[in-house]
Amino acid sequence: MPRIRPSVLNPDCSSRAVLDRIADKWTALIIRVLSGGTKRHNELRRLIPGVSQKMLTQTLRSLENDGLVNRRLYPVVPPKVEYSLTPLGRSLIEPLDAICVWAEKHFPELESARARSKKAIPGR
Amino acid sequence: MPRIRPSVLNPDCSSRAVLDRIADKWTALIIRVLSGGTKRHNELRRLIPGVSQKMLTQTLRSLENDGLVNRRLYPVVPPKVEYSLTPLGRSLIEPLDAICVWAEKHFPELESARARSKKAIPGR
Repeated sequence: MPRIRPSVLNPDCSSRAVLDRIADKWTALIIRVLSGGTKRHNELRRLIPGVSQKMLTQTLRSLENDGLVNRRLYPVVPPKVEYSLTPLGRSLIEPLDAICVWAEKHFPELESARARSKKAIPGR
Repeated sequence: MPRIRPSVLNPDCSSRAVLDRIADKWTALIIRVLSGGTKRHNELRRLIPGVSQKMLTQTLRSLENDGLVNRRLYPVVPPKVEYSLTPLGRSLIEPLDAICVWAEKHFPELESARARSKKAIPGR
């Protein structure tokens, strides 16, 4: 079988589905917080204000299934659950953080452009 | 007023909303294709298989409103519309492409992890 070069532009290449999962705001925020070290579930919720319980659980589960995050359950009462990045997850810190840093640097320019476009074409 | 350092972890900082718009599969794919030069609407559709007409139009409009993409309408029949990256949009090529390249490089590892996790915890 001929070997096809992986491309996110090919909808049949699994890399497209992977791009869909990692190019995600909550993924970027969770990876950023976990890059600082192991965190408990409640710590993650506190460190990522605005994330809902459901979205946090769902994103963590997806990251765990993808082998990006380790989930460690301690058999204590009440149960203690800790999350940390796997080596694969750590390899995502740099590219995802670059997106966060871009947003933190350039958001005023995007805000100005939005304001101008609303003025130019009202209702669009 | 004290100057607060922009942070995507702060839900009141506009950079969080910007992160939401740029950390997006279709944004990454459109920017990748436009990094190769100006494209007509139909060319973009052809070069990004799997994108719906609605999603393409919606994402292009958002990118245009954010000042990342220039839209040029030629007054001909049938109308000709061309899209190109602005300098601000070009500054996104590198960080977004790093995410695409990561997906193209690491998708087999994520696929294997998914297969293992399905085996380990059926139904989860």
